[in-house]
Amino acid sequence: MATDLRKGLQEARRQELLDTAQEFADVLRARIKQAVGQGLTIAAKPDHSLVTSADTEGEQAFRAAVLARHPAHGVRGEELPPLNPEAEFVWVVDPIDGTAEFAAGLPLWGTIIGLYYRNRPLLGVIDIPMLDVRACAAFGLGTTINGERVQIAPMSEEAINGRERVGTPSKVNYARCEGGGVLFDKLCAAHPNVRIFHTCYTHVLAASGGLDATVEWNAPLWDVAATRVIIEEAGGKYMQLKAPRSKDGEPLHNVVFGRPGLVERIAAVLAQ
Amino acid sequence: MATDLRKGLQEARRQELLDTAQEFADVLRARIKQAVGQGLTIAAKPDHSLVTSADTEGEQAFRAAVLARHPAHGVRGEELPPLNPEAEFVWVVDPIDGTAEFAAGLPLWGTIIGLYYRNRPLLGVIDIPMLDVRACAAFGLGTTINGERVQIAPMSEEAINGRERVGTPSKVNYARCEGGGVLFDKLCAAHPNVRIFHTCYTHVLAASGGLDATVEWNAPLWDVAATRVIIEEAGGKYMQLKAPRSKDGEPLHNVVFGRPGLVERIAAVLAQ
Repeated sequence: MATDLRKGLQEARRQELLDTAQEFADVLRARIKQAVGQGLTIAAKPDHSLVTSADTEGEQAFRAAVLARHPAHGVRGEELPPLNPEAEFVWVVDPIDGTAEFAAGLPLWGTIIGLYYRNRPLLGVIDIPMLDVRACAAFGLGTTINGERVQIAPMSEEAINGRERVGTPSKVNYARCEGGGVLFDKLCAAHPNVRIFHTCYTHVLAASGGLDATVEWNAPLWDVAATRVIIEEAGGKYMQLKAPRSKDGEPLHNVVFGRPGLVERIAAVLAQ
Repeated sequence: MATDLRKGLQEARRQELLDTAQEFADVLRARIKQAVGQGLTIAAKPDHSLVTSADTEGEQAFRAAVLARHPAHGVRGEELPPLNPEAEFVWVVDPIDGTAEFAAGLPLWGTIIGLYYRNRPLLGVIDIPMLDVRACAAFGLGTTINGERVQIAPMSEEAINGRERVGTPSKVNYARCEGGGVLFDKLCAAHPNVRIFHTCYTHVLAASGGLDATVEWNAPLWDVAATRVIIEEAGGKYMQLKAPRSKDGEPLHNVVFGRPGLVERIAAVLAQ
């Protein structure tokens, strides 16, 4: 088995990068708040999803912050073209995951920040500003929510009785790909106590124990950029399932994560 | 057409009762916060739903507040036996709607307060303490959210295109009654952009425009005690569908509410 390249980065370096990621999350909180104060402009993209002035201005502020601190690092995000995507360190950002919720004044949208080192996820931050909830993790350093260490407990066979709480996107996300709607129905049949918040808030809940597991479906890279590290560093299970590519040819992500034992069961339901 | 008895209550009286309901909501916020500070006890009821010390202590505090202010009024709630349920004025309360979410540290639980006058809903308050969001309405006085008047706009046929946002309970709530799971699947097929928060927060969102419509299914009286007035006073549509009785013989409530036009369409999908 190949050595994990991430181990070549000293712990102090990983901690320093995580501190930097948190500063970037602060920058985004401030910039998005400022954009709201200035009066949002809201537009529909060709795929009918929304983009606001806060999304683009947030991503610009993030990019500027990365370049100021680490000029050799790359950046990928939802709203702007990739910058230096072949760099050793590449930041991935979604300034506002859940733009429709954000534009409707709902508090459950979040900021996602991930850092990849030689294509391996090194750290992740998910920030839910309106709830003042922030999940952070870096390889080998554990997972915290608002500064407190969290641990995801396994779930026994007997405890999987239909009352387990499973977060998922809405059926509309599954239905984007052929036959996908059927998988949503299968998920709800096997685990009927589902929750649909429709944003990365469900990822934080999978780490905090608010949900027993979460499914993400047909998701672009930035939607899941922070999650793997946050879940695995808390002792949780993260499984990547087969997924199609987007119309632009970018790989999409079908993932299940949360309590070991339950995640494998859900993955079996969703196996295509 | 019979005169609406509620018109016999002067506007000043209705306003006074609404102010009182808001004071009761403040009492509940304080009592629940106190119970959390003292350390919650959590128990499972025979139907596997949870009850915490905050539920029972909240309901006791509410009952005491009603008796102190209006000794002749009745009270019905989830955790204690009815008190004077044949009174002219009957308060209906659910101190914590979403106890499982509350116990898991999630912020989306809410307090529901309704007042019935001669069996007609007179006023309603839904309070979401962790988000500091409160919806209030009384017959003839309009609906406010955090003090600001809200209005629910109708939805045209053409706008109902599959992207409309519909709140619903989880499949597990439908499946409690025979054949109910099928209706959940039908709802998701017709309106795939569903949200499942699982609590009365979806009722507030139907009034604020955060959701286009909300479904409540197999719900006891206290789950919907505030909603009809909140929706109708904002110009929204509230439809009551056929519903079974609970094991105790109490009527359950299957309701759809939100934007006129969309609500009728959803009701047709769910008609049994």
